[in-house]
Amino acid sequence: MGQITLKDIAQALNLSPSTVSRAMKNHPAISEDTKKLVQKYAEQHKYKPNTLAMQLRTNRNNTIGVIVPEIVHYFFSTVLSGIQEEAESEGYKLLFCHSQEDYEREVKSVETLIDARVCGILASQSKETQQYHHFQEIVDNNIRLVFFDRICTGINTDKVVVDDYAGAFNAVEYLISTGCSRIAFLGSHPSMPIANNRRMGYEDALRKHKLPILKEMNRVCDTPELAREVIPEMLQLNPHPDAFFCVNDEVAAYCMQISKSAGFKIPEEISVCGFTNSYITDVTDPTLTTVDQHGFEMGKVAARLLINRIEGKETKPGIVSRLIKTDLVIKGSTRK
Amino acid sequence: MGQITLKDIAQALNLSPSTVSRAMKNHPAISEDTKKLVQKYAEQHKYKPNTLAMQLRTNRNNTIGVIVPEIVHYFFSTVLSGIQEEAESEGYKLLFCHSQEDYEREVKSVETLIDARVCGILASQSKETQQYHHFQEIVDNNIRLVFFDRICTGINTDKVVVDDYAGAFNAVEYLISTGCSRIAFLGSHPSMPIANNRRMGYEDALRKHKLPILKEMNRVCDTPELAREVIPEMLQLNPHPDAFFCVNDEVAAYCMQISKSAGFKIPEEISVCGFTNSYITDVTDPTLTTVDQHGFEMGKVAARLLINRIEGKETKPGIVSRLIKTDLVIKGSTRK
Repeated sequence: MGQITLKDIAQALNLSPSTVSRAMKNHPAISEDTKKLVQKYAEQHKYKPNTLAMQLRTNRNNTIGVIVPEIVHYFFSTVLSGIQEEAESEGYKLLFCHSQEDYEREVKSVETLIDARVCGILASQSKETQQYHHFQEIVDNNIRLVFFDRICTGINTDKVVVDDYAGAFNAVEYLISTGCSRIAFLGSHPSMPIANNRRMGYEDALRKHKLPILKEMNRVCDTPELAREVIPEMLQLNPHPDAFFCVNDEVAAYCMQISKSAGFKIPEEISVCGFTNSYITDVTDPTLTTVDQHGFEMGKVAARLLINRIEGKETKPGIVSRLIKTDLVIKGSTRK
Repeated sequence: MGQITLKDIAQALNLSPSTVSRAMKNHPAISEDTKKLVQKYAEQHKYKPNTLAMQLRTNRNNTIGVIVPEIVHYFFSTVLSGIQEEAESEGYKLLFCHSQEDYEREVKSVETLIDARVCGILASQSKETQQYHHFQEIVDNNIRLVFFDRICTGINTDKVVVDDYAGAFNAVEYLISTGCSRIAFLGSHPSMPIANNRRMGYEDALRKHKLPILKEMNRVCDTPELAREVIPEMLQLNPHPDAFFCVNDEVAAYCMQISKSAGFKIPEEISVCGFTNSYITDVTDPTLTTVDQHGFEMGKVAARLLINRIEGKETKPGIVSRLIKTDLVIKGSTRK
């Protein structure tokens, strides 16, 4: 005996499938009597809503694919945990692909997930990606797609982003309020919206407080390798920066280490602020002030949005865009 | 026109398939003339070696599934990178599953990967796992299985492990050689072979140097939460430990932080040694002495072994077991 579908229920009760669908969801437009009738019938016939019916319809399974650029980053691993919690509680299975910030690997990841017959994909793009045909292929295959964090503005689909602009603005304004005036920005590739938004938040905070925006204080520096190269150069500037606002905690931790080795006192002479609130912020000395991106929440929200699209619960025709607010977490690496 | 197989070539050239196979691989037992003949024919008929032929034969695709217990751990993320480098260079695609140290999730991960029709699985088991039927199911489905790091001794399959015993022994012996005599061990669940092996290395080093093995100096403490609970208790011991040998870098970093906050000088009063050599060992103050597990190499070796099994290049009938040697990396957190 196969699973019964919404259509079967509609036929048996002489209702339209959309009435049955709405009755199952307790839609206010449907009368209480009809709701009871439909729900009772569904229960008696062991109707399984959403995923299984959809799976039978589309020949896809109830697996969600996730593409992350960098598993080693604490932020992405917390996003994955959030995705996992939300998706698994709804009965979905998960498959992850790792692009390692590499365009070719990202393209292959998309192919692999389509081959694995996933019913939806959550993706955060690699730093390198400048072409979007592979993401378009997802959409063309009628697979639901939601971007998180590093969105692809060229593709017309739902997204969940961190409020990077406000996060950066607030952090830099806090540094200014503690007396810093030569604040350096260690950023990421300007091709990524998140990098641009943080830079704009940084610059707008300087502008608001009538501080100059200096080219030499604004560098691409988002890996340990770049940190070892760029930070010693910046410490040689005269006058040297009295604060570093860093695009991630890893670079911020190296920034502290390198500045201390060069003889600077943290935070008395140089304040350092990271971005993510990963666990290393608690084990550096001093502990690291940072911007909490709430990766776990982002993962849950992104998975929720994707599942709602898959199950037809989110029916907004345009793009749905969700914003995750950040919080500045003040620890020991910034002056009071 | 379908792909031609090794067998087709063998038939066309009136050779045995194994001769063709070895000729394609430039095996020394095959004459130069035969090699040229076979390789030319293969090229003319666009023969694609290994994966595609195998895929057609077995109705599985050229995707390898990987199950890791904890993506956030630096060690596992480097293993993943090693797996990825080796597997991708051989034309395989990858799908990851994350058990989050949870038995139920591990079982689901196995199901998900079997459903995704992977041709082989690399797995490291969760801390919680005490039943193995799901791993047996992989084997029963004729899917090649290789364990890495956290092996499941109950399942008769290939494995790649770190030389945890020697790594621990050497680290503890080094601590003793610098004058430490009250060395605490912060370990992991004794049900895991890696935890047991490290504890045995620790104890054997103490025995060799005629130091007592004290119950109160040997605790399960492998997470930040446990570190915050266990380490303050151990610092209250009289006499207090003069060294901590920790099961991972994360706990070692917290151990330094907590000991410093309690007023102890690192390394003068207390030496601390981690395990992994993750990037945090360079950003703590002092930097952290640790045991390098060579995760990247482990990933490559594990993937190589699996691929050799899939492609029939590793034909040893019993279990193949590979050992990855560790290296003690002396940094600033241990006395000289």
